[in-house]
Amino acid sequence: MKKIILFFTFSVLTVYGLFAQSGQASNNFNVVDSVRPSPYNLYGNQFPRIEADRRVTFKFYAPNAQKVQVSIVNVPYDMTKEENGVWTYTSEPQDLGYHNYWMVVDGAVVVDPATNGFIGYSHLCNGFEIPDPDGGFYALKDVPHGNVLLKNYYSTVANSWRQIFVYTPPDYEQNIQKRYPVLYLQHGGGEDQRVWIEMGRTNLILDNLIAEGKITPFIVVMETSAVTQRSIVPGPPAPRPTIPGAAGTPGAPAGGSRPGGMFGMSGPGGGIYGQLMTTDLIPWVDKTFRTLSDQKNRAMAGLSMGAMQTRTVTLANLDKFSYIGMFSGGTIAPADITDKSKVRLIFMSYGSRERGSESVKAAADALNEAGIKSVSYVSPLTAHEFQSWRRSLKEFALLLFKD
Amino acid sequence: MKKIILFFTFSVLTVYGLFAQSGQASNNFNVVDSVRPSPYNLYGNQFPRIEADRRVTFKFYAPNAQKVQVSIVNVPYDMTKEENGVWTYTSEPQDLGYHNYWMVVDGAVVVDPATNGFIGYSHLCNGFEIPDPDGGFYALKDVPHGNVLLKNYYSTVANSWRQIFVYTPPDYEQNIQKRYPVLYLQHGGGEDQRVWIEMGRTNLILDNLIAEGKITPFIVVMETSAVTQRSIVPGPPAPRPTIPGAAGTPGAPAGGSRPGGMFGMSGPGGGIYGQLMTTDLIPWVDKTFRTLSDQKNRAMAGLSMGAMQTRTVTLANLDKFSYIGMFSGGTIAPADITDKSKVRLIFMSYGSRERGSESVKAAADALNEAGIKSVSYVSPLTAHEFQSWRRSLKEFALLLFKD
Repeated sequence: MKKIILFFTFSVLTVYGLFAQSGQASNNFNVVDSVRPSPYNLYGNQFPRIEADRRVTFKFYAPNAQKVQVSIVNVPYDMTKEENGVWTYTSEPQDLGYHNYWMVVDGAVVVDPATNGFIGYSHLCNGFEIPDPDGGFYALKDVPHGNVLLKNYYSTVANSWRQIFVYTPPDYEQNIQKRYPVLYLQHGGGEDQRVWIEMGRTNLILDNLIAEGKITPFIVVMETSAVTQRSIVPGPPAPRPTIPGAAGTPGAPAGGSRPGGMFGMSGPGGGIYGQLMTTDLIPWVDKTFRTLSDQKNRAMAGLSMGAMQTRTVTLANLDKFSYIGMFSGGTIAPADITDKSKVRLIFMSYGSRERGSESVKAAADALNEAGIKSVSYVSPLTAHEFQSWRRSLKEFALLLFKD
Repeated sequence: MKKIILFFTFSVLTVYGLFAQSGQASNNFNVVDSVRPSPYNLYGNQFPRIEADRRVTFKFYAPNAQKVQVSIVNVPYDMTKEENGVWTYTSEPQDLGYHNYWMVVDGAVVVDPATNGFIGYSHLCNGFEIPDPDGGFYALKDVPHGNVLLKNYYSTVANSWRQIFVYTPPDYEQNIQKRYPVLYLQHGGGEDQRVWIEMGRTNLILDNLIAEGKITPFIVVMETSAVTQRSIVPGPPAPRPTIPGAAGTPGAPAGGSRPGGMFGMSGPGGGIYGQLMTTDLIPWVDKTFRTLSDQKNRAMAGLSMGAMQTRTVTLANLDKFSYIGMFSGGTIAPADITDKSKVRLIFMSYGSRERGSESVKAAADALNEAGIKSVSYVSPLTAHEFQSWRRSLKEFALLLFKD
């Protein structure tokens, strides 16, 4: 009985958090312990609806369509037409956390107007969220909150303005003499700088860890990677980039540790993106925010393609980065490190459902044996999705800037 | 010739600005003087494409659909099927500025995955942008930029967390003893707190005016109105709320000045939303930011439904607000004001294509004759859309907190 009460209390907090984070706020949003609308639904829409057993029911109005599918994490499922022009589908039980979805109407990949839009798979997507009983670490709670800032800066390397998100810790505004370490945090392929806030809940994860006194407060900078010019119109959406370690669902291809030349990762200085970071982004951040700008107070991490970017940029710039985090994007071997005295920590993680998850412990062991401090982490029962990366960020944050 | 060069330079700035503001940044975005992709297109998509004569070409892949329409500002237009499953449509010349659109595939209202998502009409929409030769006031320029902050606060009136946007001026971080006036800025029906940043470009408008020394720097708070629980699933999207003054396109119904009881506007204290503002929001803002918290340094304005909310909240709380701005949402008469000594300015505006535009000058004249300072403004050749409201915000900002 006590367990049930605790779970209910937790669920209320979680749902409020997700709801506020989603960009919506309503005094009419009814929190139900079991069946509930997904928190990203706009304007009180009841569907997608999260069922008590983690199944999800979708409804979609398409009166004249011949065939309607809902694509959940890029796998299409046929919907059934009801009498009033509404199509319906109830899924198998879903993993905990955030999932992308979209609709396919008579062959057209489209976005459901009923939820907020999220970037993924190189196009606009829908999203839904399965509450996690252990997800309190990313809930919006009544603790001091840091700032999430939308900032624009000009990059000479890219020759354009670039919009970024910056997180500053809760005490940044109060301790106006204090300086902070910085984590540069990269999104995955087909995404952009928004995802670590909108799906990753970076600000809430760090607010909560800081409130519990578990981490050293730091600034987070979320940039956009170099963007490729793939087009989804005309023609069907481009597939998620084929990259080592980007295994998503069970049965997807095995991961590896060697990034290719895509996404500005080839060339000197960590490729174009490394050049952008060292020439424009880092100097601008150090000028604009009260940072600790020495090498031992600068970290970089990323998910999937962003992990490989992190690998490429940091290994080419070990004079600038001391902490390296790779979430679902390969591993680093001792031979990859030119100067092991520079590396304070290499963190490597995967979701347990990903191929690659079996590789990180051995990779960390090899680094530790070579005298390079390394920690591995496997997120239980999650795939190539944000629940793996929320947990990875938390585990990585616990280790950052500690000595 | 000189004119052409100036226009080209301006266009480059504008497009960069829009692009960065849209949440995307790319070094591969090719600025073309005439034909160009809309700046909100994701991942290098070429369509929607803005033609040199302000027509817009849409392409949409729907291989098995029987009928595809593109709905531009809520008016559907039939597209033509080409051989490869791609449907196409080139519009009539569009007004300058931001416009919503979406797709209708075999009767299903859907969102095009090719552009960023925007909230409007109580659901997710697409957007495109027609460059305005006089739009430099909302371009991203190399001037000091204020901060745009995503903040969460807890409302006891709504009994929930609420996410808001806050703009602080460029010198807020530097002049750490200085306090600032505050403008509370409301969105329209079927929208939420994001629109004044994402479509309204509030931060860039104020950055530019401050850089030119034309306005008194102030903080802007963008909240969500009370949200009604209309559902678009199952069933077609709910229409834009029928509200006085919400005329959108030529021929839409005439506006008026009397808000109804919807959207938390009935009841004491300016309705539920007025109670939320005075009980929770304003005290939280005055505690969290360095505000000038007296009545003469507090303004409220809004667009459409937000204008009527502004009217309702301010007239019931004249001890708390001295500046009142109503953009495309009715007028105020002398008899509505209980204590005219409290009012420093009433600003009323419309787009010239809106019914209601003919009423604001007479309404302002009546207020001025009654000893209540009032200014009216009509935005040339714009409708019930954001170009009217960007311009209205600029004109209102020029008058705020000046004595």
